[in-house]
Amino acid sequence: MTRAAVVGLGLIGGSAALALGARGYDRDPGVRARARQRGIDAAESLAEALSGAEIVLLAVSTNDVVALLPQAAGAAPAALITDTASIKRPIAAAASALPAGTRFVGGHPMAGSKTLGIEGARADLFRDRPWLVVPTERSDVYAIESVQKLVRSMGANPVVVEAERHDALMTRVSHLPHAVAAALARVVAAGASAGLDRFAGPGLLDTTRLAEMSPELLLELSLASPSALADALGDTARELRRLAEALRSGDGAAVGAFFEGAARDRDLFAKGSRS
Amino acid sequence: MTRAAVVGLGLIGGSAALALGARGYDRDPGVRARARQRGIDAAESLAEALSGAEIVLLAVSTNDVVALLPQAAGAAPAALITDTASIKRPIAAAASALPAGTRFVGGHPMAGSKTLGIEGARADLFRDRPWLVVPTERSDVYAIESVQKLVRSMGANPVVVEAERHDALMTRVSHLPHAVAAALARVVAAGASAGLDRFAGPGLLDTTRLAEMSPELLLELSLASPSALADALGDTARELRRLAEALRSGDGAAVGAFFEGAARDRDLFAKGSRS
Repeated sequence: MTRAAVVGLGLIGGSAALALGARGYDRDPGVRARARQRGIDAAESLAEALSGAEIVLLAVSTNDVVALLPQAAGAAPAALITDTASIKRPIAAAASALPAGTRFVGGHPMAGSKTLGIEGARADLFRDRPWLVVPTERSDVYAIESVQKLVRSMGANPVVVEAERHDALMTRVSHLPHAVAAALARVVAAGASAGLDRFAGPGLLDTTRLAEMSPELLLELSLASPSALADALGDTARELRRLAEALRSGDGAAVGAFFEGAARDRDLFAKGSRS
Repeated sequence: MTRAAVVGLGLIGGSAALALGARGYDRDPGVRARARQRGIDAAESLAEALSGAEIVLLAVSTNDVVALLPQAAGAAPAALITDTASIKRPIAAAASALPAGTRFVGGHPMAGSKTLGIEGARADLFRDRPWLVVPTERSDVYAIESVQKLVRSMGANPVVVEAERHDALMTRVSHLPHAVAAALARVVAAGASAGLDRFAGPGLLDTTRLAEMSPELLLELSLASPSALADALGDTARELRRLAEALRSGDGAAVGAFFEGAARDRDLFAKGSRS
């Protein structure tokens, strides 16, 4: 069994430490204490956690991965390093600046929970979920293979994808829905008078749920692929205007085609989650 | 106790008939049979159902209310007539054409269920839900008062609102979210490659849920307030473009303000549903 170390013991890192039986570390002493209560072997320092590790999993934010990478490469030069952050281009760029001998492969598990932090961690969080594996300039084929094996050992399905394509995919399936939910919330509130809350049905509430946004995601949105997100927002605005024109000109066939296409499209990506 | 008759025994009409212990009628013999199994006194003809009724509740679609109104007014000239359809301006216009002695007040209960039709009907469907009461040219103060009483007797909270304002409110809290969910589904599907369904998380699925739309709602959308919906779509497109510009110019403060405003706005209309 590969000796793994997990840095960052939030929901993702805590779940990985549980799934792998790995040693862990978190910069927050309170989190370390709670991780120990969950049965995780949490070290008191980063150096102690990384010592002797063959694989290091950085389960921290995109910014923190970029900052930690050189430090982890220095402390465990022989180890294979991977991460779980949700934006991959800045991380791939940071990997290029590592010493030539360092091996790093990016990663991004598609898993989550309503309970965040170590409290939500569970060993089966990744079971049957996709885990995107993102090669960088510091990834050889053996390193990529090892990360796929690590991911499979947690029950997840590895999917190899380039950093560029990863970020483009996330722009559409994650950042765009957040931005659209926020825009809708603003328009509904702006056009409505007092007492609106009494008339909000479950449909409106579902459609705007993502507008209740975490500060981390906000940062991610402004950092990630701003021009790709701006393009996707432009596409959405164009769709809305096309529908508005069809409504104004009383073109019932165009209105119908718009909604029928949308129902088919929605079915396309809802399929996987239902099976 | 007022003698009430309910026309249309779907989810809303069936629930009203159960809540009021009213006689009912549905043009579909199969629905009449299933309504009887639920304990509803379902008549075999519209005339039989309306005979002797003091209040007639038309629980059918907007188009069908417009078509039925003159017939109901002819069959029960002394009765107070009300309805439950979700668009009020065409109905208010149809009411103006009724004989001067007819009394009609519009209505729209804000209640629903995942199980549609008579199968989903229950006596407490309207409990603590708003029920919009919409005066027309054929509504005197006593008629409005009687409809409020009827609504309260089913456990709902009557809210009196003009037809114009009713339809504008519905455009924002119901039709707009449907249209935005549809546009988002189209853009996500268009920009993504095969296998997208594997990466769709609960956030994307919630935000696009309304894109799976019933044909009735589709018709309603193209019929209701097309120019008001077109305006609201234009407002939404403008918000999306504003965010896109802030992202392109790297204006982090503007991006932050956009999302913080949205979170506050969302809180505004989510409040009522949480309490």
